[in-house]
Amino acid sequence: MSEHDAVEVILAKRDGHELSESQIDWVVAAYTRGDVAEEQMSALAMAILLNGMDRREIARWTAAMIASGERMDFSSLSRPTSDKHSTGGVGDKITLPLAPLVAACGVAVPQLSGRGLGHTGGTLDKLESIPGWRAALSTEEMLAQLEDVGAVICAAGDGLAPADKKLYALRDVTGTVEAIPLIASSIMSKKIAEGTGSLVLDVKVGTGAFMKDQARARELAETMVALGTGAGVRTVALLTDMSTPLGLSAGNGIEVAESVEVLAGGGPADVVELTLALAREMLAGAGVTDVDPADRLADGSAMDAWVRMIRAQGGDPQAALPIARESHVVTAPADGVLTRLDAMAVGLAAWRLGAGRARKEDPVQAAAGVRWHARPGDMVRAGQPLLTLLTDEPERFERARATLEGGYDVAPAGTSYTPSPLVIDRIS
Amino acid sequence: MSEHDAVEVILAKRDGHELSESQIDWVVAAYTRGDVAEEQMSALAMAILLNGMDRREIARWTAAMIASGERMDFSSLSRPTSDKHSTGGVGDKITLPLAPLVAACGVAVPQLSGRGLGHTGGTLDKLESIPGWRAALSTEEMLAQLEDVGAVICAAGDGLAPADKKLYALRDVTGTVEAIPLIASSIMSKKIAEGTGSLVLDVKVGTGAFMKDQARARELAETMVALGTGAGVRTVALLTDMSTPLGLSAGNGIEVAESVEVLAGGGPADVVELTLALAREMLAGAGVTDVDPADRLADGSAMDAWVRMIRAQGGDPQAALPIARESHVVTAPADGVLTRLDAMAVGLAAWRLGAGRARKEDPVQAAAGVRWHARPGDMVRAGQPLLTLLTDEPERFERARATLEGGYDVAPAGTSYTPSPLVIDRIS
Repeated sequence: MSEHDAVEVILAKRDGHELSESQIDWVVAAYTRGDVAEEQMSALAMAILLNGMDRREIARWTAAMIASGERMDFSSLSRPTSDKHSTGGVGDKITLPLAPLVAACGVAVPQLSGRGLGHTGGTLDKLESIPGWRAALSTEEMLAQLEDVGAVICAAGDGLAPADKKLYALRDVTGTVEAIPLIASSIMSKKIAEGTGSLVLDVKVGTGAFMKDQARARELAETMVALGTGAGVRTVALLTDMSTPLGLSAGNGIEVAESVEVLAGGGPADVVELTLALAREMLAGAGVTDVDPADRLADGSAMDAWVRMIRAQGGDPQAALPIARESHVVTAPADGVLTRLDAMAVGLAAWRLGAGRARKEDPVQAAAGVRWHARPGDMVRAGQPLLTLLTDEPERFERARATLEGGYDVAPAGTSYTPSPLVIDRIS
Repeated sequence: MSEHDAVEVILAKRDGHELSESQIDWVVAAYTRGDVAEEQMSALAMAILLNGMDRREIARWTAAMIASGERMDFSSLSRPTSDKHSTGGVGDKITLPLAPLVAACGVAVPQLSGRGLGHTGGTLDKLESIPGWRAALSTEEMLAQLEDVGAVICAAGDGLAPADKKLYALRDVTGTVEAIPLIASSIMSKKIAEGTGSLVLDVKVGTGAFMKDQARARELAETMVALGTGAGVRTVALLTDMSTPLGLSAGNGIEVAESVEVLAGGGPADVVELTLALAREMLAGAGVTDVDPADRLADGSAMDAWVRMIRAQGGDPQAALPIARESHVVTAPADGVLTRLDAMAVGLAAWRLGAGRARKEDPVQAAAGVRWHARPGDMVRAGQPLLTLLTDEPERFERARATLEGGYDVAPAGTSYTPSPLVIDRIS
């Protein structure tokens, strides 16, 4: 006879009670082994979404998800480790320059990443546009590369937090994705199980982010920082703007190209700013305070780390990136100042052009995406190229264009424009 | 491409919106044919439980469940029809004397009943204690018996509201039983599909009922009366007390015996009172106002109808009812007045003695149950038999006794006792 049963746990949360540690441990373990049915977990997930969980419950839930699988251990490495997680945005290629930059500063970066689903891109999808590069590494390969190169970006193995893998797939089809306790425990169970010594969270807020309003983004950030800290991982979160897409491109290969520009000492100012801000937090979390990451961008050592990181995973950093077969230019409708470029509109357009996938088994196009030629605050002239749409399949242009309608505003010259800060707040 | 998708409907209800008619029609039909998965419907059921549905949504949901199956038609009968539904209580054998009594007054009673689950008994389980009696009838047999005898109590066929059958089984394992919109639509979809011309609802309230508080019982009653009326069925509800069990017995065969006593002109006063109150409502609903059912109990015509009804379904109304192999007497702890006999305690004790089932595939014992020898307000003497526990399996006594501890109060003689009314309110 088991300690608890699924209906008892569902009723407790449905009726607004706090779940006991024993109830949480039981329900997560029983779900993982199949003794709690999918339809029971979905009712519980909806009750959690609508009635919430307190910090103590979320911490226990996270611990139970970690306990459902294996844990990694980086204590054998000669350097400290630090990792970064972004809640997902449009044009968010920051991991690509960030990981080799932090490695070049002496801190190892074990970046377990995912693929994109919906309008936000996936880091692995972007890197796979590099000829030869492979995402799947064994634990031994990963440890060897961390010791040798100092940075690895690869796919998370199936062994970490299998409860989360199962629950995430269920939430996706049952309307229970947007629950802060479930989002926070999903992210943090994987990051804690991965074994990083410190963690920086980039919590996006704005139209192109998962969290549209600042209060909820802040709540998510605070919840995750508490979870990490409670589990012994030095954790800090930056709340960053995602109402405008990052940089000047959203896609796969085109974001790799932009990342290489940043590593070469150039690139869009906002990408450089956010890369450096996150690098400083990662270094501080790992206890390294005597290195300025800007110097490592300037002296080429971050680029060296990039080249070694790509090569270690079979990629050719010198190879030409794929070029889209078709392109279509959207021009500025009038003279004036670009006052808005909506992240969600750009993200959906890139997705519809083939850069993202609708279902997780879909392929992505390496060269598809959107480039924009002005950022909010820039002056534009009627007829000048505003956006370039890229795809291998020209029949995709029409829906992508429709998505972009209403996605940007050009105001008469002289209209005042106040840029909003990229880094909104820091939560530790 | 389908009109709607499951996640869209779940999100709408999750976020507190009213579901459209088209969303409701689609989700019920798609669930019935298996295109909406069990885990999606359970998330939706939990969202409905926590966020509610308004009257318009409930009416449409009920109509969609009716449309998922076949409808019966009694228009070929020479007399009007009336049916009764009880939300379930302890010792609630009222259907047994009521159906033949109403038939004896000239109104046909097509009573589609269920089996018991948990602490409340099932009408079919009670009748199956009569040797030879069978619950399963074809539609033709049912119509012929209604024309000939005027009353039939049988199992509902699989063709009525299959969406409800599927959803009820799901709610049972996902903690989503106690949602008034889902309870009301479940009951009323079957009753409306059954085709009765009028309907009387006995909505129980109290410790032994599904609804513990009057406000929720009233809300359920009002919701169901509105649903029936809106579907063209003359519908009335009585709100009746279920803090004390009905009559003097709870079980299967022992409740049949008590019902026969009522049909013979005797029986416990509360059972007679509720039987007559419900009979008058059923007759009024069918437009028969010139017959007093009390006369039909007194003149033996209700008993005649009972005998014919049982015989028509293969039962022998003269056969001895089964007798339990073992009995155990619980005595009064002191001289005084019995001020409380808790319906839930008695119901659970009868269930644990073998009168009910824990899972729907379990058998029940025909002779098991509880008899009580005093009702609240009666004087008792220390050591006199207060309850008799009956079972074929004496190892069941201990748990049944434990269940009854604290289930009754004996106060010093002279303590004032005010009986609560049996019929609390009438809702039409």
